[in-house]
Amino acid sequence: MYREQIKVLDCTIRDGGLVNRHGFSHDFVRKCYAGASAAGVDYFEIGYKNSRELFPDPSFGPWKFCSDDDIRRVTDGIENGAKVSVMADVGRVNMNDVKPASESPFHMVRVASYVKGVDKAIAMANTFHDMGYETCINLMAISRDQGPELDEAFEQCEREAKAQVIYLVDSFGSMYQEDIKTMVARARTHIKTKELGFHGHNNQQLAFSNTIEAIMHGVNYLDATVYGMGRAAGNCTLELLLGFLKNPKFDIRPVLDLVSQQFIPLRKEFEWGYIIPHMIVGQLNMHPQDAIEVRKGADAENYRGFWEKMVSGVLD
Amino acid sequence: MYREQIKVLDCTIRDGGLVNRHGFSHDFVRKCYAGASAAGVDYFEIGYKNSRELFPDPSFGPWKFCSDDDIRRVTDGIENGAKVSVMADVGRVNMNDVKPASESPFHMVRVASYVKGVDKAIAMANTFHDMGYETCINLMAISRDQGPELDEAFEQCEREAKAQVIYLVDSFGSMYQEDIKTMVARARTHIKTKELGFHGHNNQQLAFSNTIEAIMHGVNYLDATVYGMGRAAGNCTLELLLGFLKNPKFDIRPVLDLVSQQFIPLRKEFEWGYIIPHMIVGQLNMHPQDAIEVRKGADAENYRGFWEKMVSGVLD
Repeated sequence: MYREQIKVLDCTIRDGGLVNRHGFSHDFVRKCYAGASAAGVDYFEIGYKNSRELFPDPSFGPWKFCSDDDIRRVTDGIENGAKVSVMADVGRVNMNDVKPASESPFHMVRVASYVKGVDKAIAMANTFHDMGYETCINLMAISRDQGPELDEAFEQCEREAKAQVIYLVDSFGSMYQEDIKTMVARARTHIKTKELGFHGHNNQQLAFSNTIEAIMHGVNYLDATVYGMGRAAGNCTLELLLGFLKNPKFDIRPVLDLVSQQFIPLRKEFEWGYIIPHMIVGQLNMHPQDAIEVRKGADAENYRGFWEKMVSGVLD
Repeated sequence: MYREQIKVLDCTIRDGGLVNRHGFSHDFVRKCYAGASAAGVDYFEIGYKNSRELFPDPSFGPWKFCSDDDIRRVTDGIENGAKVSVMADVGRVNMNDVKPASESPFHMVRVASYVKGVDKAIAMANTFHDMGYETCINLMAISRDQGPELDEAFEQCEREAKAQVIYLVDSFGSMYQEDIKTMVARARTHIKTKELGFHGHNNQQLAFSNTIEAIMHGVNYLDATVYGMGRAAGNCTLELLLGFLKNPKFDIRPVLDLVSQQFIPLRKEFEWGYIIPHMIVGQLNMHPQDAIEVRKGADAENYRGFWEKMVSGVLD
């Protein structure tokens, strides 16, 4: 597969930060940034731009806040570096902390929002846009929120947002390839002047195939993470995606080095990937929270018990 | 997804046996058979029907040979048991060991063959058919052998084989969903009176999505294994497949119990699944042997080195 318009965004540190309270060391993030850049990745999402005042808990690491200083420590001096992206949640950013893009070490802001919150997300993304940033709106949990409000959200994104990309986010890892096809077509009936993006979760081992499906239907912005690291089941793995894309600018080898040297050891400390409770909530189209909880306790491997609890009210 | 004609074949013990020299204990296999049967699986493939004379090495376990006695030990007394299948390779079966189906504890024989060996496979499968067995022909490595010989093989299967099912086997875990669509259409231009089956490998985390793709294009015989256990990267996981299929006869819970109680401990002893060298040979459309070898040695996690070695002559 080769299409010049395709952009790959590595969100390992951002989505993976949900596994370790954003506690990656500066050295680790710098290696990831250097590796992703050498691999030809277009964007590198480094964390959340949250206000420290709202999250005073000192156990949170730097990538929950992404200060300009922290970003510079891990990116300065790396040649041909990927553009740096941060994620912003509505109501959690102190806009006084944010400088105009021309004075900032990051290039893109992605505003994540559930479908019902899209008005506020558009307003926030437009503010960043007017400060000179590239912007995206990431519509989360679209496997759940499929009523008419979804069409309205697409319509509003097209009409009101200055964002260059609207992302479809399968937060629950619940969508099958036919759902991707249908959802992209539905988005395209409203969104005619912007790019579409896709961010998958791997609860059902479908994040990569769903990303391929999205590509086949014209989606050009693609999220992936090294070795699939991300919340709960994790994401589409970057090494699979680069192996599929034939754009000559991509080089899988720096990603293989990151997996060998950084992520195999890290996986012994933190868990993500194909884990049965995450698979179950994906099948049932549910938020990962209950599965994350059960993995912390004595019932971590009582899969039947977890299934029975989850299906009551859904299948029963 | 619900289609009455769909049949699920659990080949955990057969394909998984390639990981542990077919050494599962009788107790383990009996639990798997009981679980698969309770889950509503149609067929349970228990191993290979090889001749002991050809494989005298005593380190091979019972499921490389599948004597009638061994099969009976693990299936007798289990109610509503799945039909038992064995796999046969051309030239490795002592036909004197095989009784007519009416006196035998197994019901189906699947003959595995590369495309070039299809004549012999058809002859062997027809012999079993005439002894009263259900039969399938499993065409292996179809991602590699895509020349005109593949059309000839399909044509011969249609014309000469008495088998009820012709399986498309993605032995290298190399196919993407578009390849599945194209391959099923190609097979269907020749094979008009038999069912098609699909057996995937999970090198690129695509075994499940490729199985879904096959279903969408009319394939009715589906292979899966508990927790994906199988050679190298393993297979489509049974728990994912049963969660996707909505046929009321299927029940995921006995499979969840097997994963909890049997396969989580087993995975600590033997490896299968998403492992980078297996991913690499899948991407490159190669036999898994080199990846299996490298995982045994000091270079098990030198992924860049393995990549460089494998691409020489393919991409370089």
